[in-house]
Amino acid sequence: MERVSDQQPVQLRVSLAQVDTRVGDLAGNCELVVRWAAKAAEAGAHLVVFPEMTLTGYPPEDLVLRESFARASEQALVDLAERLAAEGLGDLAVVVGYLAHTQGAGPAPVDRTPSDDDDRPSDANPRRGAPRNAAALLHGGDVVVRYYKRHLPNYGVFDEARYFVPGTELPVVRLHGVDVALTVCEDLWVEGGPCGVAGQAGVDLVVSPNASPYERAKDDLRLPLVQRRAAEARAAILYCNQVGGQDELVFDGDSMAVSPTGELLARAPQFVEHLLTVDLTLDPSSVPERREGRVGPMTVTRSVLSEEPVPAYAAQPAPVVEPLSDCEEVWRALVLGLRDFIDKNGMPSVVLGMSGGIDSALVAALAVDALGADRVHGVGLPSKWSSEHSLSDAEDSAKRLGMHYSVVPIAPMVDAYESSVELSGVAAENLQARVRGTLLMGLSNQHGHLLLATSNKSEVAVGYSTLYGDAAGGFAPIKDVPKTLVWDLARWRNAHARERGETEPIPVNSIEKPPSAELAPGQQDSDSLPSYDELDAVIADYVDRDLGMAQLLERGHDAEVVARVLRLVDAAEFKRRQSAPGTKISLKAFGRDRRLPITNRWRETLPTVREGAAQS
Amino acid sequence: MERVSDQQPVQLRVSLAQVDTRVGDLAGNCELVVRWAAKAAEAGAHLVVFPEMTLTGYPPEDLVLRESFARASEQALVDLAERLAAEGLGDLAVVVGYLAHTQGAGPAPVDRTPSDDDDRPSDANPRRGAPRNAAALLHGGDVVVRYYKRHLPNYGVFDEARYFVPGTELPVVRLHGVDVALTVCEDLWVEGGPCGVAGQAGVDLVVSPNASPYERAKDDLRLPLVQRRAAEARAAILYCNQVGGQDELVFDGDSMAVSPTGELLARAPQFVEHLLTVDLTLDPSSVPERREGRVGPMTVTRSVLSEEPVPAYAAQPAPVVEPLSDCEEVWRALVLGLRDFIDKNGMPSVVLGMSGGIDSALVAALAVDALGADRVHGVGLPSKWSSEHSLSDAEDSAKRLGMHYSVVPIAPMVDAYESSVELSGVAAENLQARVRGTLLMGLSNQHGHLLLATSNKSEVAVGYSTLYGDAAGGFAPIKDVPKTLVWDLARWRNAHARERGETEPIPVNSIEKPPSAELAPGQQDSDSLPSYDELDAVIADYVDRDLGMAQLLERGHDAEVVARVLRLVDAAEFKRRQSAPGTKISLKAFGRDRRLPITNRWRETLPTVREGAAQS
Repeated sequence: MERVSDQQPVQLRVSLAQVDTRVGDLAGNCELVVRWAAKAAEAGAHLVVFPEMTLTGYPPEDLVLRESFARASEQALVDLAERLAAEGLGDLAVVVGYLAHTQGAGPAPVDRTPSDDDDRPSDANPRRGAPRNAAALLHGGDVVVRYYKRHLPNYGVFDEARYFVPGTELPVVRLHGVDVALTVCEDLWVEGGPCGVAGQAGVDLVVSPNASPYERAKDDLRLPLVQRRAAEARAAILYCNQVGGQDELVFDGDSMAVSPTGELLARAPQFVEHLLTVDLTLDPSSVPERREGRVGPMTVTRSVLSEEPVPAYAAQPAPVVEPLSDCEEVWRALVLGLRDFIDKNGMPSVVLGMSGGIDSALVAALAVDALGADRVHGVGLPSKWSSEHSLSDAEDSAKRLGMHYSVVPIAPMVDAYESSVELSGVAAENLQARVRGTLLMGLSNQHGHLLLATSNKSEVAVGYSTLYGDAAGGFAPIKDVPKTLVWDLARWRNAHARERGETEPIPVNSIEKPPSAELAPGQQDSDSLPSYDELDAVIADYVDRDLGMAQLLERGHDAEVVARVLRLVDAAEFKRRQSAPGTKISLKAFGRDRRLPITNRWRETLPTVREGAAQS
Repeated sequence: MERVSDQQPVQLRVSLAQVDTRVGDLAGNCELVVRWAAKAAEAGAHLVVFPEMTLTGYPPEDLVLRESFARASEQALVDLAERLAAEGLGDLAVVVGYLAHTQGAGPAPVDRTPSDDDDRPSDANPRRGAPRNAAALLHGGDVVVRYYKRHLPNYGVFDEARYFVPGTELPVVRLHGVDVALTVCEDLWVEGGPCGVAGQAGVDLVVSPNASPYERAKDDLRLPLVQRRAAEARAAILYCNQVGGQDELVFDGDSMAVSPTGELLARAPQFVEHLLTVDLTLDPSSVPERREGRVGPMTVTRSVLSEEPVPAYAAQPAPVVEPLSDCEEVWRALVLGLRDFIDKNGMPSVVLGMSGGIDSALVAALAVDALGADRVHGVGLPSKWSSEHSLSDAEDSAKRLGMHYSVVPIAPMVDAYESSVELSGVAAENLQARVRGTLLMGLSNQHGHLLLATSNKSEVAVGYSTLYGDAAGGFAPIKDVPKTLVWDLARWRNAHARERGETEPIPVNSIEKPPSAELAPGQQDSDSLPSYDELDAVIADYVDRDLGMAQLLERGHDAEVVARVLRLVDAAEFKRRQSAPGTKISLKAFGRDRRLPITNRWRETLPTVREGAAQS
């Protein structure tokens, strides 16, 4: 298929619509597409790209197995194409992600076939219907082409092999003389994947709708990745990532456009919805050959929407936004993750216990940044072991933030329990935490607030929390934030306020004082835990990086500290299984990302010791 | 490769060791293998087969990603082979499952490759090392052959595509003139899989170590499945399944031997460890051809341990145990699931709240069957809304079971809260449940009991439980048991006792009286829920079978009931995410089996209504 254009450079204005979709909200997400497609049209774009699975939101998890949902997604796509045309947007090429339900579209790969003999009436049997993670190009009221994601991530938080059948076709559409190949997310992370196929087949532009969850420093990986794939595809790449929170995940956007030579043409800001518009100038003569049919492991199909290049116009400069600093990036990830969880679940307000300590002070500041002070209710819950500064720091915190605040002493309830049953030691300590949990859940039920748990990752790791006590809550905003980072974030947030001439939201005393659960007289965290510097370093290596004992010692951790921390982490699995979700910011968060059995006899020891024991 | 034997029928005595392994306990599981291999040798067996991943237990979940664990499993296998020989068991061929750690053993399949460019130090990147779900034949102190599971289930509770690289080789070992092919579990569920390859290559016997979780009526599927695979393999099949509980799963055993013509030769009892020994007489002349090398999608390798058939001996009859009735099967699944959770986690005893209702009466009876009366502690926790019969039925229940029992009225604690904060309606109802939860957790912490939650599947489905209240607990034994089955099980257990001349363990009054949460005056479940017959029928179709609105109405459910139930089920996702694990007995249990987002706007409506809404 030879192009009719005269091999002169051709222009195309493209927009990346970095939007915040809602899982399961087909109608709402279609409205979102219409609204942002209109913005792209206003900006003069010829093509607009939306994120992965735009219509369903991402990740839809087991909704994919619901045939009614998959069929509704297919229908929504067709309706959306018509709707766009009816709104006068038919000339704009719109790439959206959706859940495809292809009946009999080839067999499932053999590893996903549970049984050819199993005739139980179950959709858990993935042979019935063939769900696909799909992208489509809509134009002129029609669904012009459909692409089925080839590379299905099935590690970390991803379970796509559970849901989808991989695609084998790479559709290429000619739009204003520009050959555009469709891919989806993970396809971009695989060398020799669809971008390699596109490179061999010959295309000018690759569009890549994404749902790439935020992790610290992940933005540092994306640009070089996209640049390598552009080189492989010998084409420009439009990388559009979604933005927003979805349960444990937050998506940071960071959409970008890269030229065939790897030049960063435009980059969107993180953590906000944004329309990134960029003028491409592509040189069709740099593509040596344009093939269709079998290319490598895929089949390339070609179709033509329009041969005629757009008339020459004056290109506008596009923004190249610098990624945020580490602390600001994490802060905004936590704020957005929290806000979207609360708002997308329709909760009017939140409540949290304020101890005067750094964790609750930080969560309160995050909540106020996410929701505004009027939607945040703090409660001081002093016990007989609470120090003077606990109440005053909690009150100071609330005052700085301008949030609601009240005080309910817990002694009457604690006394009532202790008169009825005899509790001592840890049982008595936990009782205080559970009385607080019960009071806060009572206020939650009475007033419709969602209870925020204030546990940090260090505590969640070692089980330094009380189940149904301070661990109670519908969302745990700093669940994936190690204690050392809690302090860093608090200092950063105060400095950020100072820079802007605002009140520091977090009391310095809450940052500076030694951490204590205050469940017993004079108690401090350091009585039962190693220093947080040591603890967090071991957690990062054991939890996030999954290192064994020999590797942990090689990394220079103290043997006694390692033994103690690993024992605590292993023993706390049952607590974590019942913990609230919280925003993932690390390489490996507790939750879907790390799936360990509760019943588990494996304990890390040095190999020589273990072999001896096995042979004894 | 031609056989030296003279094509006369050959005999082989084989044992299936249906054992209860422990996840992560490499040393303990190796001990178990040695002990049961010795039993098999005593029984005169030439070959003994253990379940899938014998050495690691199943499922080891993310332990697989820990390189130290995978290496330790490899080492344990080698050590075990030597140990068996040292114990005088070297002549016995022993097939065990293990976790293999193959370095550079071929690339991961393309869909599991997250990134060729991603050099972050993460084991979540499955390209680093190649874990395999493996089986090995041990003999004479050596690991004779290793087989890597080909078909990796990645649906329902299974995540094997997250962990393993599939195998491509089918090893066949000649033992006493019998050609034995190794497979693992899911391989048996795939037509045209390794059994088909074995059939084309020509073997006499297929061994199949399994970890096939219990589900109601699953045993009805297994025998016809194994029979079909025997026909495909043109060989006898030894199906050995593990037994025992592991977090949400319970394995029922149900091991069996089937002849090449599909005759059931032997079948083991369910839910107990068992050595099933069977004398095979195999006819090598029925195998037309014996090939190696490429056969279909796999490579067949052949090796010879011993050509000489065993001298002719008098075959013994083997037991063919009938599967249990539905209620007995479920009862024993629940008892074993509970017992193994408690014992494998080293808990000395359990505590539970006794309301006089059927759920707590049933859980108490299960606990006593699982652990013995002396390890079970019941607590009556009456409120001002508790009826007279609540306390007397609870006491009757405890007395019938011979368990520990005490009473703690909750009024003083409830009053203390209500004097401190104003709670009304549902907030006041939940308060009572949370006071009970806090008291029971206090007793749990004080005495080291594990708290059992008594929620049933109907309640868990519709969220008819209080988070941190009656939902509190470390294990929820009847979490996957719908209320209607709760009653059936209670009647069955009483009838079972009557048959054996024992005291009925469950008070008839607890079975007969109308169910009530007793959190408000005169409250009954039927005030806020449809009848349990209707409710459970809708739950089975919506939750277990994932049917959409149109299908639900086609199945004859009442439209108003469906709308009400679906609304409740959808809204309770956040509660379920924090619920204790419980034994799976159904097609789809809440937990790993059903992964729905909390933040989820999808609501089932009739397609016509939805399309209209989308277009408006």
